Amino acid sequence: MLPVKDIGRLLLRCADQPGLVAAVSSFLAQAGANIISLDQHSTEQTGGTFMQRTVFHLSGLTAARDALAREFAEHVAEKFDMEFSLTEAAKPKRVAIMASKEDHCLLDLLWRNQRGDLDMSVVMVIANHPDLADRVRPFGTPFIHTPAHKQIRAEAERRQLELLRGNVDLVVLARYMQILSPHFLEEVGCPVISIYHSFLPAFIGAAPYRLAKERGVQLVCATAHYVTQQLADGPIIEQDAVRVDHCHTVEDLARLGADVERVTLSRAVLWHCEDRVIRYDNKTVVL
Amino acid sequence: MLPVKDIGRLLLRCADQPGLVAAVSSFLAQAGANIISLDQHSTEQTGGTFMQRTVFHLSGLTAARDALAREFAEHVAEKFDMEFSLTEAAKPKRVAIMASKEDHCLLDLLWRNQRGDLDMSVVMVIANHPDLADRVRPFGTPFIHTPAHKQIRAEAERRQLELLRGNVDLVVLARYMQILSPHFLEEVGCPVISIYHSFLPAFIGAAPYRLAKERGVQLVCATAHYVTQQLADGPIIEQDAVRVDHCHTVEDLARLGADVERVTLSRAVLWHCEDRVIRYDNKTVVL
Amino acid sequence: MLPVKDIGRLLLRCADQPGLVAAVSSFLAQAGANIISLDQHSTEQTGGTFMQRTVFHLSGLTAARDALAREFAEHVAEKFDMEFSLTEAAKPKRVAIMASKEDHCLLDLLWRNQRGDLDMSVVMVIANHPDLADRVRPFGTPFIHTPAHKQIRAEAERRQLELLRGNVDLVVLARYMQILSPHFLEEVGCPVISIYHSFLPAFIGAAPYRLAKERGVQLVCATAHYVTQQLADGPIIEQDAVRVDHCHTVEDLARLGADVERVTLSRAVLWHCEDRVIRYDNKTVVL
Amino acid sequence: MLPVKDIGRLLLRCADQPGLVAAVSSFLAQAGANIISLDQHSTEQTGGTFMQRTVFHLSGLTAARDALAREFAEHVAEKFDMEFSLTEAAKPKRVAIMASKEDHCLLDLLWRNQRGDLDMSVVMVIANHPDLADRVRPFGTPFIHTPAHKQIRAEAERRQLELLRGNVDLVVLARYMQILSPHFLEEVGCPVISIYHSFLPAFIGAAPYRLAKERGVQLVCATAHYVTQQLADGPIIEQDAVRVDHCHTVEDLARLGADVERVTLSRAVLWHCEDRVIRYDNKTVVL
Repeated sequence: MLPVKDIGRLLLRCADQPGLVAAVSSFLAQAGANIISLDQHSTEQTGGTFMQRTVFHLSGLTAARDALAREFAEHVAEKFDMEFSLTEAAKPKRVAIMASKEDHCLLDLLWRNQRGDLDMSVVMVIANHPDLADRVRPFGTPFIHTPAHKQIRAEAERRQLELLRGNVDLVVLARYMQILSPHFLEEVGCPVISIYHSFLPAFIGAAPYRLAKERGVQLVCATAHYVTQQLADGPIIEQDAVRVDHCHTVEDLARLGADVERVTLSRAVLWHCEDRVIRYDNKTVVL
Repeated sequence: MLPVKDIGRLLLRCADQPGLVAAVSSFLAQAGANIISLDQHSTEQTGGTFMQRTVFHLSGLTAARDALAREFAEHVAEKFDMEFSLTEAAKPKRVAIMASKEDHCLLDLLWRNQRGDLDMSVVMVIANHPDLADRVRPFGTPFIHTPAHKQIRAEAERRQLELLRGNVDLVVLARYMQILSPHFLEEVGCPVISIYHSFLPAFIGAAPYRLAKERGVQLVCATAHYVTQQLADGPIIEQDAVRVDHCHTVEDLARLGADVERVTLSRAVLWHCEDRVIRYDNKTVVL
Repeated sequence: MLPVKDIGRLLLRCADQPGLVAAVSSFLAQAGANIISLDQHSTEQTGGTFMQRTVFHLSGLTAARDALAREFAEHVAEKFDMEFSLTEAAKPKRVAIMASKEDHCLLDLLWRNQRGDLDMSVVMVIANHPDLADRVRPFGTPFIHTPAHKQIRAEAERRQLELLRGNVDLVVLARYMQILSPHFLEEVGCPVISIYHSFLPAFIGAAPYRLAKERGVQLVCATAHYVTQQLADGPIIEQDAVRVDHCHTVEDLARLGADVERVTLSRAVLWHCEDRVIRYDNKTVVL
Repeated sequence: MLPVKDIGRLLLRCADQPGLVAAVSSFLAQAGANIISLDQHSTEQTGGTFMQRTVFHLSGLTAARDALAREFAEHVAEKFDMEFSLTEAAKPKRVAIMASKEDHCLLDLLWRNQRGDLDMSVVMVIANHPDLADRVRPFGTPFIHTPAHKQIRAEAERRQLELLRGNVDLVVLARYMQILSPHFLEEVGCPVISIYHSFLPAFIGAAPYRLAKERGVQLVCATAHYVTQQLADGPIIEQDAVRVDHCHTVEDLARLGADVERVTLSRAVLWHCEDRVIRYDNKTVVL
């Protein structure tokens, strides 16, 4: 949690090859930027994919950003065939949270954000049930009730897309209990993060905690992942677990799991908003 | 880890009904026993299955045990339609450990037992490869090499059963890499505990750590369970997990997972040997 | 989380001796009660202190409770020189939460309680700063601002005692940043639980997270304890920890620690409200 | 665990200033090295201390290493006033382990090293008791018994120094129960890592587990640290914890703690041997 003025973040990905770190750091040094932190990862010792996150300080970044990105594209990215993004820490992501009736993930995101612990601007909460309106209102965030269920999915998603398209950089499903269509995921134009209440890939289905109880597990887990067209099969960002035992009922598992869900989702959202997550090969690298 | 002379353990299970705790504790009090600890569990608030583990002190237990069990059967167990077992803490379980080439679970069990941390007597190690003989020898435990693989399974199991039948109270599979036939499980005449290197029911198959890496998990887990005829589907006794990240190769997952495997298996074996585990409905209750 | 009608909880403590479990369970059986769960602990194998928590079902408990307690005192407790308490699960503890400016512990308690996850009735929030009034109001709990600091402690405590005395069964200090005088602790007439933001007994002092950073720890911890006249030296109820590393600033430690503080305090409060905690020898036993 | 031929590790530390990453990575690129991984840390956003660990591949490293170090000193380190070290992954550290009677940390280090999980060459075990000789022998490592206690410390240390001086790059105290004199620490000429069986700075003294039991803690911890002249006050490398409860005796705490001690010490030793640990201001940074 550093002061964010003049702080830039450069995320990049390309085929691994000698000279990458030198090229990027020299470019930044010549541009007058001071590297604050640099993390990288190669998928193989040689011949894999290279990913790097560089945080730097550059006076007057906001004015210089577009030119800097252009020059980087021309002098570095093109040469190494890089994909990259250049963002400003001072411009938090615009986020929509979608929810249903369960409040724990939604409220935790709103509360952490209010404390300044998440690096985002929550521009709306969309819920397919009206129940949570009173819980959201004190945070000053618009609460929009768009009824949605299987029978009216197309109409519901049309209205949701009207709200979201162009207005948000990230959608977070905070225990939103409807399936999103491939059409929605294509049209929404930004990443979608969800929380699943099991250790994926175990217990995919209608009631993970009931399945977990039936199997007699000793750990209850949660998985935060990007949503893709394969339900519950998107790239995992974060997972965590808590011990349970034979005394716990299905309701106890849900109660204990709720604590894991909310911290797991919050960490995933924070990392995404800090531009730490690179997707790769249906997995993620968190730098 | 208490002094074990004159310490008895009474494990029981029956339909839940009023008066169970009173009946058992009165019986023990009248027999002159002092209850040291008592744990019980009901699967439902009313109308479920009741399970209880009672540890008691009774002077002269060894001489009195058979009569005590007979009287308990007659005066308590019959009335409540109980299954029960009455054991002496001073009579550790006779255990055979089966292994292949991986040493970590095997050595950890032998080492903990040598320290006195497990409540068992390891009477033999059976391995289908000769590699670990020199590692086992310093512990003074017989190491028996019985070659086994898919093609000679029947013959291998015949020889293993000759060694085991009547000689052991528990078989522990310490990363033994052969499937045991239903015939073997029936004939061996005692429980079999195994360790699986994933969070069951996830990643069942030939190479759990490779599957985990491919799915991009953030936790690596191990599961200790009783072996039944459904491979990897027996009652879970214990599970544990360790965090991993994108830096870790499949080999790293195996290395980090080995630490979780050995503590998870050791805990499950300890609990079994202390008569803490009651099987129920393809699950366990650890009292 | 079971239905609570007709559920009683019997907590007791006495010198260990044969026949205790039998005497208590026979008494309950004869009274027509069905034992739902029973947990006990002896501090030594023989000759120590015996503690037991028994949860039972008895039709018409509310009407019968006083007579039941009287009979238990006469026929059991007196004989064994027991201290005991007999409570009804249907009568949740009346709780006052005291806070200052930090909201995380306070809000988490209120939110969990609203979900029905804690077994208590929050009758008031007392704060020595007005800042959190708007956060508490949506929960429907009275928020009472009683300015308090070192210079006006006596006056502040006098007003707090007027509010609390006779009205609450438990006071929870949810990061309340004032020291309570021995006089207050004597007069308040009920237990006081607090959360300390370190692994007690380490880092006692004004700024535990700063001290932790200076020492270069790899874990940040929280400790929930009963408040006694020895600051930070009361019986520990619960502790937990989270990993940190060299990247984390003091502010990061406080942010990560806040998550540990709130779950640790919530667990301690839940256990207390469920009559699970017995104090013994400046320690606790959680049954 | 990568193939180590031609892999170099460059560790450096200096005052933070613009251009550091660029200077180092350009130097390596020009030398024909390919950066495999690079981690750095600044103690402050600006004006603090900068630390970096760079792992690189350079064909023919062994022959080129001395010249490379000389050139780096001349062209980079001098300019930025850096301290640095340049090591080869193919040259594992020579390590002496010192022990007393407890075997768990010693055996775990030897066993992990035998598996190839630690990056070191154990050249001798020095013990002040003869008890563990038979446990060490199967690993093929020299076991040297040098009696040591308070009364003969000077003589014991003289003999130990004869064995160690010039022969080892690291000394690991695997529950070695003697205090080492400031003279020894000065003369031994290499870092010394120890494991302490508590969450430092809590429970410093003769019997941490007994102190922990008396305080009624819910977590038992271990701390691996560099040994300095201030007993138990050296820079912490790693800490970990395990849950305990009121049932556990002091012996149970020691038994459960032993598991934490051995993994904590092993991780610290691995990180040191991989040149990941930079000492700074009585703390460490693990890159």
